[in-house]
Amino acid sequence: MNRASNQLFDAYFMQPEMREIFSDEGRVQGMLDFEAALARAQARVGLIPPEVVADIELSCDARLFDFDALAIAIGSAGNSAIPLVKALGKQIAARSAEAERYVHMGATSQDVMDSGLILQLRRAIVLLEHDLTRLADAMAEQAQHHAGTPLAGRTWLQQATPVTLGMKIAGWLGAVTRHRQRLNEIKPRLLCLQFGGASGSLAALGDQAFSVAEALAGELQLALPEQPWHTQRDRLVEFASLLGLIAGSLGKLGRDVSLLMQTEVGEVFEPSAPGKGGSSTMPHKRNPVGAAVMISTATRAPGLVATMLAAMPQEHERSLGLWHAEWETLPELCCLVSGSLQQALQVIPGLQVDAERMAVNLQSTKGLILAEAVSIALAQRIGRDAAHHLVEQCCRRAVEQGAHLRQVLDETPQVSEQFSSDELDRLLDPAHYLGQARHWVERAVAEHTRISR
Amino acid sequence: MNRASNQLFDAYFMQPEMREIFSDEGRVQGMLDFEAALARAQARVGLIPPEVVADIELSCDARLFDFDALAIAIGSAGNSAIPLVKALGKQIAARSAEAERYVHMGATSQDVMDSGLILQLRRAIVLLEHDLTRLADAMAEQAQHHAGTPLAGRTWLQQATPVTLGMKIAGWLGAVTRHRQRLNEIKPRLLCLQFGGASGSLAALGDQAFSVAEALAGELQLALPEQPWHTQRDRLVEFASLLGLIAGSLGKLGRDVSLLMQTEVGEVFEPSAPGKGGSSTMPHKRNPVGAAVMISTATRAPGLVATMLAAMPQEHERSLGLWHAEWETLPELCCLVSGSLQQALQVIPGLQVDAERMAVNLQSTKGLILAEAVSIALAQRIGRDAAHHLVEQCCRRAVEQGAHLRQVLDETPQVSEQFSSDELDRLLDPAHYLGQARHWVERAVAEHTRISR
Amino acid sequence: MNRASNQLFDAYFMQPEMREIFSDEGRVQGMLDFEAALARAQARVGLIPPEVVADIELSCDARLFDFDALAIAIGSAGNSAIPLVKALGKQIAARSAEAERYVHMGATSQDVMDSGLILQLRRAIVLLEHDLTRLADAMAEQAQHHAGTPLAGRTWLQQATPVTLGMKIAGWLGAVTRHRQRLNEIKPRLLCLQFGGASGSLAALGDQAFSVAEALAGELQLALPEQPWHTQRDRLVEFASLLGLIAGSLGKLGRDVSLLMQTEVGEVFEPSAPGKGGSSTMPHKRNPVGAAVMISTATRAPGLVATMLAAMPQEHERSLGLWHAEWETLPELCCLVSGSLQQALQVIPGLQVDAERMAVNLQSTKGLILAEAVSIALAQRIGRDAAHHLVEQCCRRAVEQGAHLRQVLDETPQVSEQFSSDELDRLLDPAHYLGQARHWVERAVAEHTRISR
Amino acid sequence: MNRASNQLFDAYFMQPEMREIFSDEGRVQGMLDFEAALARAQARVGLIPPEVVADIELSCDARLFDFDALAIAIGSAGNSAIPLVKALGKQIAARSAEAERYVHMGATSQDVMDSGLILQLRRAIVLLEHDLTRLADAMAEQAQHHAGTPLAGRTWLQQATPVTLGMKIAGWLGAVTRHRQRLNEIKPRLLCLQFGGASGSLAALGDQAFSVAEALAGELQLALPEQPWHTQRDRLVEFASLLGLIAGSLGKLGRDVSLLMQTEVGEVFEPSAPGKGGSSTMPHKRNPVGAAVMISTATRAPGLVATMLAAMPQEHERSLGLWHAEWETLPELCCLVSGSLQQALQVIPGLQVDAERMAVNLQSTKGLILAEAVSIALAQRIGRDAAHHLVEQCCRRAVEQGAHLRQVLDETPQVSEQFSSDELDRLLDPAHYLGQARHWVERAVAEHTRISR
Repeated sequence: MNRASNQLFDAYFMQPEMREIFSDEGRVQGMLDFEAALARAQARVGLIPPEVVADIELSCDARLFDFDALAIAIGSAGNSAIPLVKALGKQIAARSAEAERYVHMGATSQDVMDSGLILQLRRAIVLLEHDLTRLADAMAEQAQHHAGTPLAGRTWLQQATPVTLGMKIAGWLGAVTRHRQRLNEIKPRLLCLQFGGASGSLAALGDQAFSVAEALAGELQLALPEQPWHTQRDRLVEFASLLGLIAGSLGKLGRDVSLLMQTEVGEVFEPSAPGKGGSSTMPHKRNPVGAAVMISTATRAPGLVATMLAAMPQEHERSLGLWHAEWETLPELCCLVSGSLQQALQVIPGLQVDAERMAVNLQSTKGLILAEAVSIALAQRIGRDAAHHLVEQCCRRAVEQGAHLRQVLDETPQVSEQFSSDELDRLLDPAHYLGQARHWVERAVAEHTRISR
Repeated sequence: MNRASNQLFDAYFMQPEMREIFSDEGRVQGMLDFEAALARAQARVGLIPPEVVADIELSCDARLFDFDALAIAIGSAGNSAIPLVKALGKQIAARSAEAERYVHMGATSQDVMDSGLILQLRRAIVLLEHDLTRLADAMAEQAQHHAGTPLAGRTWLQQATPVTLGMKIAGWLGAVTRHRQRLNEIKPRLLCLQFGGASGSLAALGDQAFSVAEALAGELQLALPEQPWHTQRDRLVEFASLLGLIAGSLGKLGRDVSLLMQTEVGEVFEPSAPGKGGSSTMPHKRNPVGAAVMISTATRAPGLVATMLAAMPQEHERSLGLWHAEWETLPELCCLVSGSLQQALQVIPGLQVDAERMAVNLQSTKGLILAEAVSIALAQRIGRDAAHHLVEQCCRRAVEQGAHLRQVLDETPQVSEQFSSDELDRLLDPAHYLGQARHWVERAVAEHTRISR
Repeated sequence: MNRASNQLFDAYFMQPEMREIFSDEGRVQGMLDFEAALARAQARVGLIPPEVVADIELSCDARLFDFDALAIAIGSAGNSAIPLVKALGKQIAARSAEAERYVHMGATSQDVMDSGLILQLRRAIVLLEHDLTRLADAMAEQAQHHAGTPLAGRTWLQQATPVTLGMKIAGWLGAVTRHRQRLNEIKPRLLCLQFGGASGSLAALGDQAFSVAEALAGELQLALPEQPWHTQRDRLVEFASLLGLIAGSLGKLGRDVSLLMQTEVGEVFEPSAPGKGGSSTMPHKRNPVGAAVMISTATRAPGLVATMLAAMPQEHERSLGLWHAEWETLPELCCLVSGSLQQALQVIPGLQVDAERMAVNLQSTKGLILAEAVSIALAQRIGRDAAHHLVEQCCRRAVEQGAHLRQVLDETPQVSEQFSSDELDRLLDPAHYLGQARHWVERAVAEHTRISR
Repeated sequence: MNRASNQLFDAYFMQPEMREIFSDEGRVQGMLDFEAALARAQARVGLIPPEVVADIELSCDARLFDFDALAIAIGSAGNSAIPLVKALGKQIAARSAEAERYVHMGATSQDVMDSGLILQLRRAIVLLEHDLTRLADAMAEQAQHHAGTPLAGRTWLQQATPVTLGMKIAGWLGAVTRHRQRLNEIKPRLLCLQFGGASGSLAALGDQAFSVAEALAGELQLALPEQPWHTQRDRLVEFASLLGLIAGSLGKLGRDVSLLMQTEVGEVFEPSAPGKGGSSTMPHKRNPVGAAVMISTATRAPGLVATMLAAMPQEHERSLGLWHAEWETLPELCCLVSGSLQQALQVIPGLQVDAERMAVNLQSTKGLILAEAVSIALAQRIGRDAAHHLVEQCCRRAVEQGAHLRQVLDETPQVSEQFSSDELDRLLDPAHYLGQARHWVERAVAEHTRISR
């Protein structure tokens, strides 16, 4: 299979540890862990002889299996569990013909595949939680560090009233904090056993079925759900949606950073590294290589989440086709989001900030972005519409004349007679028009701290 | 605008009450409610004179506005708040020129539109909660009622070991119960104020900004978030994802029902009504008219959720284009899901069940679907692989000879010498091979009851 | 129904003429046109008496029908044709009981709905072709007009070697030209009759079935396909995909324009109009109100196209649910794309270009964006890698020292000894490094002209 | 990298030959083929010395490169071309320092990656065309073979008037024929060179730029487009859409087959093979293992097409993020569709048909599905509504009494007095109510033949 490997972009788009979890080996091991735990559970309730467990467990090691052969057999079987269980049987039989009789008892392919997947997802969630926490910590630090650094707010991609870099980062942080909350809420719903046998009734295990289910859940340290969920896929799709949300929030971060890195803006940069973001033809460029991944993942995730949603109406007790549509889609989503997170984890702590350039840019509209400050102050004296209209005229005149707004205001008696020169200075100073910016940072950091406890 | 109305399928695809919430009037009223509350809040903190509030409030009535004119003005303004605030100003000015000076103070268009949307969503959630609860109740009742009604389990669209109708319905119920949990968890994150002014800093309101924000949240009975969320859309998209999940689960219900209604299956039917599901050319048909909507919505929702996810990377402090992409998408999703729910609420309580046909169908494989029962029992005596292999042969022979599996088993000494005739009878009786079916119903209903408390 | 109208954003997001085509009236009229043509066709082949045709035709007028009543009846019928045909029957019967006997003969609901839709799509295509042609004409003119206007090329959102505005517009034009080609190729596949009767065999029309089909296609001036296509939806979905492509290309245009309009770039602007793109709080802003629609549509279209694709696997001879998923999705897509086109048609001809600002911006990297010109020239003398490495060093030094690249090059003997001062001047002049820019414009315009013939 | 391979489902979901094209090796070779051709082209126009070409060509062999090292370098470079060109330089330098000076001259990363992709797509299209043709041939044969085999038409999943299996297959064939037409139309637009240099102007190649472009297109046997298309991605996305259409049509085929294979229907089966579609727990089952892939691909393709569409609004002269989103998405789509085709190519020629079961199923409504035949015949004598109403009543009575429709009709004087017993026999015989079924087959086959010429 090596010849047809398809991993050229893995190191760029995905986190290696996540990629490992969702490798063939990770997938097979998840299923084998289920089989081993099933044997232990059935021995525990007395359904199978305790002495066969060791031979089953020893055989449940993914490294013993030939993935190429499995891949070919999957083509005939229609799922990965049938050939794996067959191959596992052979492995066990080589140790003990007796033990082989007791493997996979009462379980169906979907039990193995779904529960194996849940075990993979549990590992994935550990990585995600760890990375989201690190990212939030870094964001909290940066938000506080830059809480007083003014830059132009930008709405519709045009300069608006000033904000601070800290406030911008606090916005990114707020989303990550909420994603961590969501992950906490989802875990108990997601990390649960799938175990139903052929049609979900566990009939094959007779009276001991429920005891086996309880023991199996215990062995795997998974919750035992109120019933099997073979064709109720909302648990998985909810998680997929959360991955989509994380991708979207990081996409917003990537977009903001790439816009701030524009040649014409130049306020914030991804950390540089030798060879990073270089261009083969333009030696001076420093491309937003990390932001590219965050945007790319945010572009790909919606389609993958849509696939998971589209695959929900699974027929009766086992779907054909819709179930299959999940097998590669959810892993891909996990890997892509992990990769986006990796990039954010490089970008945020090493963020390079050019506060001087921010100050320069804040002057590029010659005071216009502080028109609101003037308008508001004026409105309190001459009424909203009149003030709005008057300042609008001043702004237009400023634009036409290429003059600074301050100058036009000075020359406009209806304005200048309302304010002293000092008042106008202050009204046009970005640093005096930051409103709750610092407060938002404090509150976002407080929320982060609360969640992290 | 009437001439270009586009509502022919509304009554079929959407709930009228939800459609009302997301009508032009509902949208405008949401924004006006924000403006009225803002005035009250600002009067409360002493920012505006209390005597102007009444005139502002009286003007905040959607019925006073010309939607056609608004629609045209939106084309120039680029959003709905600018022309509405302008029109509102005129309404207020007609009552009191003084009052007009104090409307919309310190707010920006996005504050009005987003908070107005949240007010609409709050109303939508009341409907959804109500309908999900009613649906869950009906499902719980039906699951218990049919807890002992056997029918063929079907995996890969082929008959498998038996289940019960109750167990199938319990599966549907479980998903609805989880959706209700999710809705509960989402509400505090979703139902919160958006209020940031021009760039999010609330600078225009000076020192009183935060007090106004608190008072405004209080007036609207919305949570005050840790910071504005103008370009952090995860709150909305999370809700969209939940709507997608609900659509998917109802799609599964619709698919199951439509498959069970097939002429060749005929086990379960949507309730009939005069003229319902009739065909213009085939007078005998009873089309699954409700299931069609559930499947349709499950087909449309993924694309709409994907749109919401794709619209997340919103630039800086206000996006152009991505924000716009939400305006019709989220309402459409709400309306479609409400319509799917309406259909489910008609289908479930009135479900027509043909238990006799189920019994007939359970015999259509001539015992094959109970091969597992035999195989399992046999495995305990002669080993898993041997038993599996032997029963597989018997099944194949039964198929080849067109014989009942029972007969072939009788004629197969390796089997017949292991079991008495009574044992074989019992092994091949669906009603004796239902496993935990009743238990799953009980557990699903218990979970439903727990959540409903 | 008026109370629940939902058209507030129609004037902004959609073309009124397209909206009209896909209004309730447009839809109903499409179906009635089918019924009238069917009567004419059946009279032509002698299947029904010629004298009943007039009464049928007179009744086939959408204005005669009560859409509210239809909408409610659709909820029971599961499609729009059954109640419409019923209501049509009553209309006809009021004129002639005899004529009523001959309406809708041998047709099924899907024939009416699908063929009616095709008639709507034909009207939609006329609009699209007209608008795409006008847009291409305007782009061709602008591309030629600005063929020699240099501005910075931008890759990864960073300044790169110069391009011209004409070349940028030629890129937009090229896509529109290809879309026009595609539309031409699609039309014969799309604009064809659907006529199959109950299950597609036209059995109800006996020996005259094919003659009726031919006559009906003739009456409607639609192609007669090789067979009915009730559950083969590729014709419609291909068209949906093309709409998605158009949306994507216009989204690229909108994105480019909005980026060029940034305060910090300021090179190109949407045409201004009184009140257009104003901000309620920042009187100086001129928001890219048209680009917003183009980006919004490009964000919404992918999900809608995905829905159409997802709805393709329609069961047997008529789908339930998947067919339904198309009914509102394809019209929505048409309307949104028409709206995006309208915006492009306003933006392109009125494009405001600030060539001076472009020239200023071209200097903002102090020569760095022309490093390639130097690097290439140098490579021919000292080898690619050496040259690349050397220029890279010069660029880095220029950045570190805040110096112009020219100065650093002068101070670098390995460079300065290779080039005369004039040579360096020329190498660093954007106007001398435009390569094939003008050629691309000519070729794009030639292709446009070729297609337009 | 082997440890993290992720190919377990490749053999099931993808065609090995397609997988090979889109392997890392295939991708790298595509880019190297571009570089070799560029050297040849530049030598041809005299830009580089002819004697260096051989050393460059010899180095352009994917097997010489370390993909693991490339993958890691991509993480810093942000694309695959930069590190590949660097590694290629080293390969060439090892042969000839002189030759190394002349590689990749005037090209940019995107030229290499995009043109390399086009070369891969050309190989992919050869496979697709070949497979679509084989599939169409097989379908044409089967459609003709079963042109007279009646089975129940099914609308809304309920039995309707009869069709033939040939007509059903002809429907599948029609879609494939149209896809082949589309592929033909797309090829000239898709299979064209991307070559623009840093920003698209080819400025680095000076006066010889266009000659090089022409020579390069000639070397690669690709069309030379009117201009570079680096950020105009409609060519690629159009192809992606076609892949989506093919996936959808095969999904419809898979859905039909899986529904026909249902235990309760049992009319048509995928060809069986040892071990194919077996169940680990239900030895008698023959799962629709091929249909599962066709449905799965039809479920996954819409999201992937949506991603390609969503990635269209690429900024300026090179996008960050949106371009990246294509790199794995389009290959994945190609591979999945190829896999779906493989399954169809196994299913169609080996289709197992149970015509007896079809005949039995045609009787399962006791004549009701031929009610239309009676209704139509009766309408000609007593009027449409009266006939419809009367037959509707008879049908209902038949259902209530569990009687055959024939019996009820006999007992209904308004009917029986209109028809002789022979006439009623004939009206209720499926084989006499097949309408144009055979004609559609002939026409579909004729269209197939026409296209195949």
